[in-house]
Amino acid sequence: MNAEIIAVGSELLLGQIVNTNAQFISRQLADVGVNVYFHTAVGDNPNRLKSAIEIAEKRADLIIFTGGLGPTKDDLTKETIARHLNTDLQMDDDAFTSIEKYFNRTGRPMTENNKKQALILNGSEVLPNEHGMAPGMIYKKDERLYMLLPGPPKEMEPMFLKFAYPSLRSKLGSSEVIASRVLRFFGIGEAMLETEIEDLIDGQSNPTIAPLAGDGEVTLRITAKHADLQVAQQLIDETEEKIRKRVGEFIYGYDDSSLMEELIKLLKEKELTIAAAESLTGGMFQQEFTSIPGAGSRLKGGIVCYTNEVKANILQVKEETIQTCGVVSSECALEMAENAAKLMNADVGISFTGVAGPDELEGHPVGTVYIGLYQKGKKTKVEKLNLGGSRAANRIRSIKYGCYFLLSYIQES
Amino acid sequence: MNAEIIAVGSELLLGQIVNTNAQFISRQLADVGVNVYFHTAVGDNPNRLKSAIEIAEKRADLIIFTGGLGPTKDDLTKETIARHLNTDLQMDDDAFTSIEKYFNRTGRPMTENNKKQALILNGSEVLPNEHGMAPGMIYKKDERLYMLLPGPPKEMEPMFLKFAYPSLRSKLGSSEVIASRVLRFFGIGEAMLETEIEDLIDGQSNPTIAPLAGDGEVTLRITAKHADLQVAQQLIDETEEKIRKRVGEFIYGYDDSSLMEELIKLLKEKELTIAAAESLTGGMFQQEFTSIPGAGSRLKGGIVCYTNEVKANILQVKEETIQTCGVVSSECALEMAENAAKLMNADVGISFTGVAGPDELEGHPVGTVYIGLYQKGKKTKVEKLNLGGSRAANRIRSIKYGCYFLLSYIQES
Repeated sequence: MNAEIIAVGSELLLGQIVNTNAQFISRQLADVGVNVYFHTAVGDNPNRLKSAIEIAEKRADLIIFTGGLGPTKDDLTKETIARHLNTDLQMDDDAFTSIEKYFNRTGRPMTENNKKQALILNGSEVLPNEHGMAPGMIYKKDERLYMLLPGPPKEMEPMFLKFAYPSLRSKLGSSEVIASRVLRFFGIGEAMLETEIEDLIDGQSNPTIAPLAGDGEVTLRITAKHADLQVAQQLIDETEEKIRKRVGEFIYGYDDSSLMEELIKLLKEKELTIAAAESLTGGMFQQEFTSIPGAGSRLKGGIVCYTNEVKANILQVKEETIQTCGVVSSECALEMAENAAKLMNADVGISFTGVAGPDELEGHPVGTVYIGLYQKGKKTKVEKLNLGGSRAANRIRSIKYGCYFLLSYIQES
Repeated sequence: MNAEIIAVGSELLLGQIVNTNAQFISRQLADVGVNVYFHTAVGDNPNRLKSAIEIAEKRADLIIFTGGLGPTKDDLTKETIARHLNTDLQMDDDAFTSIEKYFNRTGRPMTENNKKQALILNGSEVLPNEHGMAPGMIYKKDERLYMLLPGPPKEMEPMFLKFAYPSLRSKLGSSEVIASRVLRFFGIGEAMLETEIEDLIDGQSNPTIAPLAGDGEVTLRITAKHADLQVAQQLIDETEEKIRKRVGEFIYGYDDSSLMEELIKLLKEKELTIAAAESLTGGMFQQEFTSIPGAGSRLKGGIVCYTNEVKANILQVKEETIQTCGVVSSECALEMAENAAKLMNADVGISFTGVAGPDELEGHPVGTVYIGLYQKGKKTKVEKLNLGGSRAANRIRSIKYGCYFLLSYIQES
């Protein structure tokens, strides 16, 4: 089965947003072995959309549309497809009820054009929208599938995973199974990793090994095809084993995990609570920590100490430390981590102090970061980073390094 | 002039990377008044690339290719276009010298396939690559322009801005200038906004008015074309005035601004410092605040009080409040905001407490949020939200509402 993804929305063609939907869907389709040969983006224009549909019909069995299901006049994906396929639109009761509920819950009045969102292509399978109003749908005609999904990624992604993907798999009735596993690395660069395992990448076709780098991390995706899922998994296991023998020390997790999730897993396992003191990261560590549902029970709380005053008065960093060593120092980082944990009555403490940029601080160049680590009954530890990136990159990398260091610090006996 | 952007690379169709190039180029083209009607992404496959070129030739005067100019066998953009246009490839001396220099500088040996990168379509205008090896080029045939750009954004973007854009402008000999302005709204839904100004959207062609929604915000982009930039600006002013008369109270800023940036601007103007107490948002307010360079000087610091223990011990919320009213209450929010400000010696305090989800808390449904507002010498205020989204959406919207409420709270006399 070959697919084409058509994104509908003038905001894409004006460069106001980037087409992350095509990426998300492509990745999912790659996992089930559906080949994506084309992505198209077209504006909110019925004629051009119609021509895009006609072209896609010549080259794809599955056409996935994203966007244009909203309440406004610009939103014309459904209408254009209905006209093109000579079918009509019908009110879907479940979708209508769900839209009504949304308005009742938020206390806002429902307008006439909101009702339009509950219209579906007559005879299509409805994909419920649990994070917004417009339902998605799958329509079949002449052995070709038309899948319509909403544009906002926050609505589209969960809808795809929960409803579209299972429906698609069952329709495929695929005999060959595709299994894949992502190995996540930290502390090794992409070029170095690729050099270490170049012969494995070149020498294998099943499984394949594909490296990808981003945000200071590198991942390897191992993908195997086989009629028997267990055999596919075993092929992956063998390849992982070969990779681990060479660069296993840099592997920290699998698939969609993150350093933060691994840290939270470890804290849960060891029944430890944590507190944080954040200067240059301004709350990012705690924000990311608490973005994971259920993780909150591990976090006692923390202090964002952007000023020296707060470092001294609330976090009780010694005046002497601030005056003699400065706030960009290992001494300050250590006190911040230990004091945060003690103040909040937590088992573990982590601190971030340094220079995010764009300006220098206390004579230290941009990218100088100290990370303090504390655990009850253990010797405190500090790690220093010299990052060379932008303000945003320095903050994000500090958090990743912090998780990485803390993971091994807690595991040390 | 109408343009189509064709991205070449199987990594796009596998979802390994997102097509930011299309966004970047589209935004630049919008600024010079070139209409982009389609984006296409196609894999490293000569037949499918050829068919994409044929389709684009039917609907665009300017076809911009990104990617496929590298040294490997996969890279076949130039070769496919050359064959399709019946032209040959020729070694470009300047490009070759520049590649040689690159290898000398890095001390690596130059391989045979690197030389391939210096080949250009015979007769094309070369766009130098100052951040990599493959040069770009512009080729003209039958009044149609073919622009070839490298795939990596770090090479493509500076090449586009420095060489492609000026060349394009001079080729256009454009007399018409395009000006646009984005109005940013908060507190009004997309459907409601459109209902209020429907006649303006429908009745105008110059300027045009285009709405866009996302993350609880709505924007309107007003775009005007005219030979005289001043007249175009004036047309925009007039349209903005008409819109303001109807829904002006919901406009909070222009263009790329954000509620957080507007809040920081106001704090700077009034020389106020701020402190935050964050429960459900887990540090997100402060993280976003400090992500803006220079904003840090307005933030004294804050407390992330994820546990009742920290709310009571560090933030000094009265035990009685927690026991009688609960932590999801206006009383708790008010104490949090006021105490944070006083503890940190800040002029203004803001607090977030509530239920991010996925589970209920203290019998309150997911999405119940209290935002406390405090300013020295002013009566404290609390705002309640009933959000209906996911955990992530509830946190993001809480921050936006927090900024929105605080903006008007500070402005109240």
